[in-house]
Amino acid sequence: MSTVKLWTDAEVSADPRIKAVFDDIRATRKSDFVNNFWRALANQPDLLERTWSSIKQVMIEPGALDPLTKELIYIAISVTNSCSYCIHSHTAAARAKGLTDQQYAELLAVIGMASETNALATALQIPVDPEFIVK
Amino acid sequence: MSTVKLWTDAEVSADPRIKAVFDDIRATRKSDFVNNFWRALANQPDLLERTWSSIKQVMIEPGALDPLTKELIYIAISVTNSCSYCIHSHTAAARAKGLTDQQYAELLAVIGMASETNALATALQIPVDPEFIVK
Amino acid sequence: MSTVKLWTDAEVSADPRIKAVFDDIRATRKSDFVNNFWRALANQPDLLERTWSSIKQVMIEPGALDPLTKELIYIAISVTNSCSYCIHSHTAAARAKGLTDQQYAELLAVIGMASETNALATALQIPVDPEFIVK
Amino acid sequence: MSTVKLWTDAEVSADPRIKAVFDDIRATRKSDFVNNFWRALANQPDLLERTWSSIKQVMIEPGALDPLTKELIYIAISVTNSCSYCIHSHTAAARAKGLTDQQYAELLAVIGMASETNALATALQIPVDPEFIVK
Amino acid sequence: MSTVKLWTDAEVSADPRIKAVFDDIRATRKSDFVNNFWRALANQPDLLERTWSSIKQVMIEPGALDPLTKELIYIAISVTNSCSYCIHSHTAAARAKGLTDQQYAELLAVIGMASETNALATALQIPVDPEFIVK
Amino acid sequence: MSTVKLWTDAEVSADPRIKAVFDDIRATRKSDFVNNFWRALANQPDLLERTWSSIKQVMIEPGALDPLTKELIYIAISVTNSCSYCIHSHTAAARAKGLTDQQYAELLAVIGMASETNALATALQIPVDPEFIVK
Repeated sequence: MSTVKLWTDAEVSADPRIKAVFDDIRATRKSDFVNNFWRALANQPDLLERTWSSIKQVMIEPGALDPLTKELIYIAISVTNSCSYCIHSHTAAARAKGLTDQQYAELLAVIGMASETNALATALQIPVDPEFIVK
Repeated sequence: MSTVKLWTDAEVSADPRIKAVFDDIRATRKSDFVNNFWRALANQPDLLERTWSSIKQVMIEPGALDPLTKELIYIAISVTNSCSYCIHSHTAAARAKGLTDQQYAELLAVIGMASETNALATALQIPVDPEFIVK
Repeated sequence: MSTVKLWTDAEVSADPRIKAVFDDIRATRKSDFVNNFWRALANQPDLLERTWSSIKQVMIEPGALDPLTKELIYIAISVTNSCSYCIHSHTAAARAKGLTDQQYAELLAVIGMASETNALATALQIPVDPEFIVK
Repeated sequence: MSTVKLWTDAEVSADPRIKAVFDDIRATRKSDFVNNFWRALANQPDLLERTWSSIKQVMIEPGALDPLTKELIYIAISVTNSCSYCIHSHTAAARAKGLTDQQYAELLAVIGMASETNALATALQIPVDPEFIVK
Repeated sequence: MSTVKLWTDAEVSADPRIKAVFDDIRATRKSDFVNNFWRALANQPDLLERTWSSIKQVMIEPGALDPLTKELIYIAISVTNSCSYCIHSHTAAARAKGLTDQQYAELLAVIGMASETNALATALQIPVDPEFIVK
Repeated sequence: MSTVKLWTDAEVSADPRIKAVFDDIRATRKSDFVNNFWRALANQPDLLERTWSSIKQVMIEPGALDPLTKELIYIAISVTNSCSYCIHSHTAAARAKGLTDQQYAELLAVIGMASETNALATALQIPVDPEFIVK
């Protein structure tokens, strides 16, 4: 159903440039499984390399936000953008990183609440309080 | 600029039903400041009561996600919905809850990254990997 | 602040093609006031004519939905698209068509509720019940 | 395909808290059919209770907007948010409440028109006319 | 899975008003294939006629933008709106108009980049530079 | 009004890492003007470097799509995301790259048309024609 073919492991192995990215995905994630997102991007080598490099820097390298928090933010955005693939892949990723049922229930509550109050604030065109403005 | 008038403290004080909500907002947040969102909702008492009750339950009562994490999720959704008021109010709220510059930089990076890969996955109409499906 | 100039009445009067549309807007709406949307579209005569012709057919000619209901739908979509201009203009139009404060409060409640449950259904990727499918 | 399991009637019956909500849904709607949305929310009891309580108050209790009008607004928002589940469930709900083919055709026309003019007003960044501002 | 029935060629042939539009679609596009979008719109004759007339004027008649460029813009909007049907149909249309793999890779890169920087600019609520304002 | 301070030229000059990016922006664009987007990103050096590097690769280096076409796609996405800053900056950029009034009028027409038909296809939940599926 995708607009491009999804590369099989055999096709990946036959192309050194693509293979290098897939090898790094597998090594970085310590898993042999490479999901369809990367198999679709393999059709556009520049985009594949740039996207993986950014994902690695933003989502995987240690930083000030823990990995699970980043996944929750990713899910929230994916829901708001109605990206079905992203919702499934990042909900699975969050669970792999330890998301509990109680945390997931709260995430859903926050997503629902934010969507509701976003709509209300926009409908009412509420002016920003001066207290919120960065000086 | 809002589509309704914003209630002043004097107007709030003159209406017991609205005053009760504002008193609870102030007591719960331990702050005298009540932002414009509530001053606009004051025109719709049912909606005001229901929204405050939900916000209190979802965002303020202790749970499995810490308060700052909830604010980061709120910001991410507000950005994706392009809700200017919500971005300002929840970025301010996150700072009040201890958001550091480094955490904010990472939040921005995750928001940018998720927005980009959401668009790519949607453009390519990538099928969900069977591995992501809940059995 | 617009990306194009807004046509003044003097400029409109000097251009027969644009003037014909503005005359029809004024005659159809029985009002001398022509809002900025049309003054901006005046820069693109084809688009101006086509858009006014469609608006007239869809929003003004009598049909199976009453004019106020159409405005409520318009507001709901404008909020979801975060179109500030459209929210202001169609909230004003709804009021001119008799929107009461109580109806506006309920509209806001429905907008909030739909935004919340949309987000929940999308987050949970709920499959469509067979009962909802058109045979 | 959902990110959580959908509760069967047997599972619902075994959990008094969830059963109470489902019983109220059935009694309020005067129908034995409970759609998947609620079967998914059953995994998060707090959210289930709060969402049903709000839906009941906003969508079902008599008010200033008639039930069919509320469904049309719901559909319009669901379309703009690209929520496939919500479009199917609320289009079915509108039909159950008497939506005629002619009304549906007009709803589609208004949805299309609003989406188009929203995009034009946003692209042109048209300033709000002073006449639309609430004093 | 659509909310309305899709008209077959036999049904179209039996309705002169619908047949006239389908005949024009086939003659204009020099192809016997009529896609599901039009078969769904056939349920709403006014909307069918108006939409086809606009599509013909905007997308098919020669103008200042070449047909392939218009398809790329269409794809970009369809992705941002998460319209699965539109992404598939306009990606196919772009390919039929000569879209190369290299152009498609660049389109994807621009879509990803714009989505990312849109989110960043919105998150940061950056004020418009005076240099960008039309005088 | 931004959520972070905008760096002045003096502040940029005092920070070698930020200065290197600003110098490259000026040299690459052959212009001394650096817009607020980069002055806001200067608060997050990693994000600034990565974003500029990607923008340079995607939008400025020669490729299979000409620079004006890329700007039109950028505008279309920015409109759909309701990013006011991005609409202004990329409309200005397109004009600087030679966008004519006639081309702009057609761009607006395509944006309006795509937004309308996206909404219709989504509202009707039209199934993808088998002819559009990549084999």
